Amino acid sequence: MMRIDILSLFPDMFTGVLGNSILKKAADKQKVAYQVVNFRDFADNKHQTVDDYPYGGGAGMVLKAQPIFDAVHHLTSKTIEAKMPRIILLCPQGERYSQRKAEELAKEEHLIFICGHYEGYDERIREHLVTDEISIGDFVLTGGELGAMVIVDSVVRLLPGVLGNKASAQHDSFSAPLLEYPQYTRPADFRGFKVPDILLGGNHRKIDEWRKKQSLKRTWERRPDLLTQYSPSLEEKGWLEDIRKMKEK
Amino acid sequence: MMRIDILSLFPDMFTGVLGNSILKKAADKQKVAYQVVNFRDFADNKHQTVDDYPYGGGAGMVLKAQPIFDAVHHLTSKTIEAKMPRIILLCPQGERYSQRKAEELAKEEHLIFICGHYEGYDERIREHLVTDEISIGDFVLTGGELGAMVIVDSVVRLLPGVLGNKASAQHDSFSAPLLEYPQYTRPADFRGFKVPDILLGGNHRKIDEWRKKQSLKRTWERRPDLLTQYSPSLEEKGWLEDIRKMKEK
Repeated sequence: MMRIDILSLFPDMFTGVLGNSILKKAADKQKVAYQVVNFRDFADNKHQTVDDYPYGGGAGMVLKAQPIFDAVHHLTSKTIEAKMPRIILLCPQGERYSQRKAEELAKEEHLIFICGHYEGYDERIREHLVTDEISIGDFVLTGGELGAMVIVDSVVRLLPGVLGNKASAQHDSFSAPLLEYPQYTRPADFRGFKVPDILLGGNHRKIDEWRKKQSLKRTWERRPDLLTQYSPSLEEKGWLEDIRKMKEK
Repeated sequence: MMRIDILSLFPDMFTGVLGNSILKKAADKQKVAYQVVNFRDFADNKHQTVDDYPYGGGAGMVLKAQPIFDAVHHLTSKTIEAKMPRIILLCPQGERYSQRKAEELAKEEHLIFICGHYEGYDERIREHLVTDEISIGDFVLTGGELGAMVIVDSVVRLLPGVLGNKASAQHDSFSAPLLEYPQYTRPADFRGFKVPDILLGGNHRKIDEWRKKQSLKRTWERRPDLLTQYSPSLEEKGWLEDIRKMKEK
């Protein structure tokens, strides 16, 4: 069973996400155990202060090293683990999160997330405590909490036995190198908007070809960067050439 | 006041995130009003089914057009708005989310988010209903809910009057073109780990120079792609050259 501990000043933020859907089911099936810890409880000063002014001046506050070091120590000293935990700092300066990283983290036994809120971290947390710094993207969030939830969700769904259908974890976009083709379900005519005829017929060879072409077309239009990592077959190369010509007209 | 409506099959997922910290404060200050709607309530069949098998066969289910069209219609027909709402579909095939997009959405009056869960969307939702398709990154999540939360958080913090200190919204990484420099706070010696001497002295010109160099160094090491969008001054070009040489040794 994977252990996931989250350090945050806003533990209540996590209840909805950890308590619903797949993340809840995974805990119910004992594939994972979550613990959300308020690191303010570990502050060793009488006012339970967790931040202070930056050395050298400047705007904003900085999260102190002591409460976070002691909270992590508390979480790692209680049990003897064969493998060292991954201690993950959510921050804009971190490595950009990706499906490859999700797959890597899904092999671990114990993940600890450190979530700051608006503020910077004392650099010594980076230098001497954490194993990974991760950013989920080039946008500014009010804290690390949403980043931690995103990583937890993407990792837990990969754990063996969590998704009912083993195929469903493997069949998504970004596990595959191309974007998914358009999908349609009933009715065939929805308020005048129709399903392509080819999908209504029963010719599965033609349907597969149509889907593959649509995948290539969508990827070419929206995410050409993904195509550079993709080796199309000779047939697919011809289709890509057709798509390119269609667009040039 | 901005209106934010979210369509989801798991409305409870949102309580923790919308009910805490800045997102709660923004609603308390009437800068924004959230509404989370379960689009299952709009299914017009007696079993309240929201999904069905894909035309043309294949694994997985597809979210039907009808409940989502009708839920959006319900949200947009009640009031007369000067500006059309942005109707945002969270999906892996979408445009990659960025701070630039957050700034664009922060200028809107009404955002509607459509969150699927594990499943694909009937293509007619893309073709005839939504204005934007967004993906928060190249990783697979169990649904669009976390993506919607990420976008809401990044947009709401930009609304005028939401962050106490106006500067704090502008001063972050990714608003700026470089990653932030290391920050330290008390104590100067934490369990043997020391704050750089320069930050303890009072020479602010030297501190500013050290910080600028550290920003450049960190960006060069971690996100060289950001430097290509950045025009360093002559002095900074010299520092970058120094950093490059140091690394080559």
